[in-house]
Amino acid sequence: MNKNSSNIMALVPNTSNKRETVCIFGTGDFGRALGHKMIQSGYPVVYGSRSTQISNLIPKDAEVLGHAEAAQKAAVIIIAIQRQHYNFLTSLSQVLHGKVLVDISNNLKLKQYPESNAEYLAQLLPGSKVVKGFNTVSAWALQSGTLDASRQVFICGDDVEAKQMVMNIVHGLGLTPVDKGSLLAAQEIENYPLQLFPMWKFPIFLSLGLGLFFFFYSLALDVIHTYVYDNNNFSFFIAITIPNRVFPVLALTLFGLVYLPGIFAAIIQLYRGTKYRRFPDWLDRWMLARKQLGLIALAFASLHAVFTLVTPLRPYSSWRTSNRIISQVLNNETVSLNHTNAWLIDSYLAMGMLGLFLFVLLGITSLPSVSNSLNWREFRFIQSKVGYLALILCTAHTMIFGGKWFLNPSAYKWYLPDIYMLSLIVPCAVLVVKFVLIFPCVDKHLTRIRQGWERNPRYSEQSNHIINKSAV
Amino acid sequence: MNKNSSNIMALVPNTSNKRETVCIFGTGDFGRALGHKMIQSGYPVVYGSRSTQISNLIPKDAEVLGHAEAAQKAAVIIIAIQRQHYNFLTSLSQVLHGKVLVDISNNLKLKQYPESNAEYLAQLLPGSKVVKGFNTVSAWALQSGTLDASRQVFICGDDVEAKQMVMNIVHGLGLTPVDKGSLLAAQEIENYPLQLFPMWKFPIFLSLGLGLFFFFYSLALDVIHTYVYDNNNFSFFIAITIPNRVFPVLALTLFGLVYLPGIFAAIIQLYRGTKYRRFPDWLDRWMLARKQLGLIALAFASLHAVFTLVTPLRPYSSWRTSNRIISQVLNNETVSLNHTNAWLIDSYLAMGMLGLFLFVLLGITSLPSVSNSLNWREFRFIQSKVGYLALILCTAHTMIFGGKWFLNPSAYKWYLPDIYMLSLIVPCAVLVVKFVLIFPCVDKHLTRIRQGWERNPRYSEQSNHIINKSAV
Amino acid sequence: MNKNSSNIMALVPNTSNKRETVCIFGTGDFGRALGHKMIQSGYPVVYGSRSTQISNLIPKDAEVLGHAEAAQKAAVIIIAIQRQHYNFLTSLSQVLHGKVLVDISNNLKLKQYPESNAEYLAQLLPGSKVVKGFNTVSAWALQSGTLDASRQVFICGDDVEAKQMVMNIVHGLGLTPVDKGSLLAAQEIENYPLQLFPMWKFPIFLSLGLGLFFFFYSLALDVIHTYVYDNNNFSFFIAITIPNRVFPVLALTLFGLVYLPGIFAAIIQLYRGTKYRRFPDWLDRWMLARKQLGLIALAFASLHAVFTLVTPLRPYSSWRTSNRIISQVLNNETVSLNHTNAWLIDSYLAMGMLGLFLFVLLGITSLPSVSNSLNWREFRFIQSKVGYLALILCTAHTMIFGGKWFLNPSAYKWYLPDIYMLSLIVPCAVLVVKFVLIFPCVDKHLTRIRQGWERNPRYSEQSNHIINKSAV
Repeated sequence: MNKNSSNIMALVPNTSNKRETVCIFGTGDFGRALGHKMIQSGYPVVYGSRSTQISNLIPKDAEVLGHAEAAQKAAVIIIAIQRQHYNFLTSLSQVLHGKVLVDISNNLKLKQYPESNAEYLAQLLPGSKVVKGFNTVSAWALQSGTLDASRQVFICGDDVEAKQMVMNIVHGLGLTPVDKGSLLAAQEIENYPLQLFPMWKFPIFLSLGLGLFFFFYSLALDVIHTYVYDNNNFSFFIAITIPNRVFPVLALTLFGLVYLPGIFAAIIQLYRGTKYRRFPDWLDRWMLARKQLGLIALAFASLHAVFTLVTPLRPYSSWRTSNRIISQVLNNETVSLNHTNAWLIDSYLAMGMLGLFLFVLLGITSLPSVSNSLNWREFRFIQSKVGYLALILCTAHTMIFGGKWFLNPSAYKWYLPDIYMLSLIVPCAVLVVKFVLIFPCVDKHLTRIRQGWERNPRYSEQSNHIINKSAV
Repeated sequence: MNKNSSNIMALVPNTSNKRETVCIFGTGDFGRALGHKMIQSGYPVVYGSRSTQISNLIPKDAEVLGHAEAAQKAAVIIIAIQRQHYNFLTSLSQVLHGKVLVDISNNLKLKQYPESNAEYLAQLLPGSKVVKGFNTVSAWALQSGTLDASRQVFICGDDVEAKQMVMNIVHGLGLTPVDKGSLLAAQEIENYPLQLFPMWKFPIFLSLGLGLFFFFYSLALDVIHTYVYDNNNFSFFIAITIPNRVFPVLALTLFGLVYLPGIFAAIIQLYRGTKYRRFPDWLDRWMLARKQLGLIALAFASLHAVFTLVTPLRPYSSWRTSNRIISQVLNNETVSLNHTNAWLIDSYLAMGMLGLFLFVLLGITSLPSVSNSLNWREFRFIQSKVGYLALILCTAHTMIFGGKWFLNPSAYKWYLPDIYMLSLIVPCAVLVVKFVLIFPCVDKHLTRIRQGWERNPRYSEQSNHIINKSAV
Repeated sequence: MNKNSSNIMALVPNTSNKRETVCIFGTGDFGRALGHKMIQSGYPVVYGSRSTQISNLIPKDAEVLGHAEAAQKAAVIIIAIQRQHYNFLTSLSQVLHGKVLVDISNNLKLKQYPESNAEYLAQLLPGSKVVKGFNTVSAWALQSGTLDASRQVFICGDDVEAKQMVMNIVHGLGLTPVDKGSLLAAQEIENYPLQLFPMWKFPIFLSLGLGLFFFFYSLALDVIHTYVYDNNNFSFFIAITIPNRVFPVLALTLFGLVYLPGIFAAIIQLYRGTKYRRFPDWLDRWMLARKQLGLIALAFASLHAVFTLVTPLRPYSSWRTSNRIISQVLNNETVSLNHTNAWLIDSYLAMGMLGLFLFVLLGITSLPSVSNSLNWREFRFIQSKVGYLALILCTAHTMIFGGKWFLNPSAYKWYLPDIYMLSLIVPCAVLVVKFVLIFPCVDKHLTRIRQGWERNPRYSEQSNHIINKSAV
């Protein structure tokens, strides 16, 4: 069918139940899977192939014809052949004129070719309307029906009506089309299935590195030191006690690293007196990684909470309780409650729990559907004001936990500070500088800079830019 | 207004604040609710009705005219009458020519009629443009303003401009239109409000059945047996102890059942030497239920975690602690820490917590918005690699919990194994076979099959399919 | 470019890689940020300005021309000037005829002007096609690349093709356009960034008020009373014990307030014998706040759960355990297990955990993506049936927790009931009335009313509405 009749098809109410015929060039694995799915959904399918041997795998209800014949029977043609063979299609450019060609190809690696496969196809066949689609759906998913993560089909193309026809077919297969714009988006769509959590790589490696460092630090100070000096074999600490020292230190440090780039950005802007010079690259990439750093910090904070809650179930804990009570009995002590201790411990427990609660709230607002339902002002309120409150509570939790112990020489084994003190470095730095930044004199200055004021405005008289009011 | 002027309306910028008139056929409950909502949102409404008695319930600002008169005042006509009366509209086909008819009907049960109501209407009035919409919104929600789950209005139709006009009205009412494609999607849209968790029925019944079985099994072995033989009345176990034995067994078994169909699929493919023969129906349905089985398993695992954490708050636990310490005091024992016990218990607690953490991560990636932000490769990484790691941790948690107890005859009351051993059946089977499947020789073979290789390729010479290269 | 050529641009496949030129009127902060972003994404940008002094901040690759000259070079013109200066554009109406004008303005407060800025612009320039967009994106986000909450760009306009051109540009910048309908939606889009959680203000203030009241109530009865009468200084209770009394009371009360308006609505409908009279305003607003009230209740219930689970880690708890065991040892008691106590405490713990679990399930179905995947029937099943089950479990948890203590005079300090009894007022009222409402006689009557039946139907003979069958 030529272009005119396909346009007429879209505009006249389809009073029959029959879906339109779709042509598929190529009888490889994906082409057959897509054909099966289409026939299942009621679309008559005709294959274009030049093979004399026809696999029995082609659906029984599908016709197999030559390319030119097959192309004439449909308005939409799925190009299920590899990019290397695209130039073969130029010999069919007459027949393919005005047809909608759907490029479903994927590459093996990023930047394999200078331009996207869909744009290459559009250059070879300028008379056809190329639409990119289906490359984010796998053959396995089409066949087995497990369509969870691939229910979305990204579509892009220059011609609006061609895109609409392809989107109708996607709907007809029970999938959800997502319009990504013009054919210039094809590069992004072709890169999409090749990624594996690109934004998460740096934060995860940073966390693993820091985690390993803290683990061995704690192993040295909490297990090896006591083994060497007190001859206690606490090797079982490796299962719960040491992780429960590493997790909170990691969590608090990463949480501080979420807010530190904002501090650096503010300092840089105050120093330069303008907001218009670009930040250094490392600061830009750090700012973009803040969400991932925060979610990893939340994960470690939650693990710390659970590892703390199982303390009463541990043999070590029952052993210490038994020892304590037995010695109290044998010494015939009247047990009195140390009120200072009760205040301190209850306080840091309460602050830890409230801090974690606010932290979880931050995490919930990071979910895509929740953050999409907030406007920019609401999102900043949560991530900034509620976030700083959570940071304050978690830092206070750690400081009260330490209490006056940092004054005690036994907190410094081998002249190294206890691991909880390491966790306070980043968040305290952040909170102290932030406290300075919210003083009215500093804050007013920074707000002016962020609204466009510049200490050294940069203007120039450019004669070729002079506008005569009369020309307006 | 006829078709030409309605098209002109869409293309000329609407410089007045007045929204276009909408006509509603039918003054029943939903028709009146929709009319109220439209007048509230600024759309003038004219009803088409043949009743001489006009209910006071019709909004004051709405006109009531005869059908033919009313139809001429609007471009969009909501058909708020029952399907049985659609044939009455054929007498108005002249007036309705070129109008946009919105079919809002719902049926009482699935497959009540051979074709969808919207397609039936389109057959009766081929000159009009039928759009399906509004049937997923309830009258109650329109009136009371609680629009949570029905903010989405599914729309489908063959004519793109007609759909756009209806979508504009939906926007105008403060609802969110969702385009579902051509009129062939009407069947699915009409079925949508009739479902009640269709994908969840089988997994929930399976869980209830297994749960009841495990509950009575544990009741017999943990409460009745000790009552019969040791004369201890532990009936209060029914509140927390027995649920806390049933939940983890259910969770681990269901978790294993999530990965078992994948194992069967791999075995079947290796046995047949091809991936192109369809799986048995039961396997297909099992594969589609995996997400629901996994979420139910996660729910039971979370309940198990919480039921375990409250152990120290239970009188039974304080009673056992008191007895233990008192006997230690009275026997003047020096309490030493059993290091092996400390290692074992800390280890299985740690594994349980890490396994649950990864399990929760799997659950979070099942949320629609999160799974839509992952591509197929990322989704498989999480569900497959992270999922198997979680399964290994949870199985190890259970095996270490058992420890050497399975060698102890007292673990077998009435010659039946303790309930925790039942939970190991499915996951161990899955992990053992999976371990075999990842051996390089087996894995390479399976990967080849999944990329399209066949042990017995099935080709045929089909003369009516022979292509002449010259015909290309 | 005039209208015809811009239309031709959209319909002909774009075979070159070059994106179309965009014109920006205005060189203020947002205009420059948007220009930078567009040049980064490959769109040639030309500014229209009458300033003779050109800031160095204008991107180097951008041209700066007079307004009329600049307008002729592009089909899409971003109007990045303030509303006060819009009337200046009428002098350019000839040049701007047929162009797509994008209104990106924001106001400082709600209802600052009688009509939206976009509609005002459309009135001034009726020959142009006005599209509203980009006002929900901040300059800071465009510059720094942190596009989390502003990835969505709300678009609305009367002309479908103009909207499509703007949506393509939005895609090209890597943002996600969301179509909000015709230009009548501009008011809502302009209000959107000005809101700060409008639906949450009332529920949060209510919770804070109730929370303060319960806090001082508990402080008086649990800390001050025992200090006055028993001379115990339990001031450290403020950290964990008193919050852990206030949180559950708040949670249960707010949870009851979620279901109370539904009860009132049913009573009102039964009393009036019809569903067609509007509810009082306060009831309507209460019904709309139910989701927020429920989520706040869930937050407090979760905090209560965590604050309870840390009990064994508190010094107060170890002190009481030590005292108990030591007195048992010194009195040479054989410790027997109080079975009634074991049943009671295990039961209320179990009910509390199951109630919280169902409550969390309700919260998960409130997430936007999850509630959008449920139809109305499924959503009501969860929120109504599962919700009432959760309310029953939480109320039973509190009643069993109290046990027979309400019969004990010492539960009434200063003649005031213990705080847990206050929490039972609202939920018990709800459950009792709901129990009455589900009796078959009452339920049948209410269902009839909800399907449209009226005790006193209100009909009128209205002669100007009388339809002659012959006119049909």
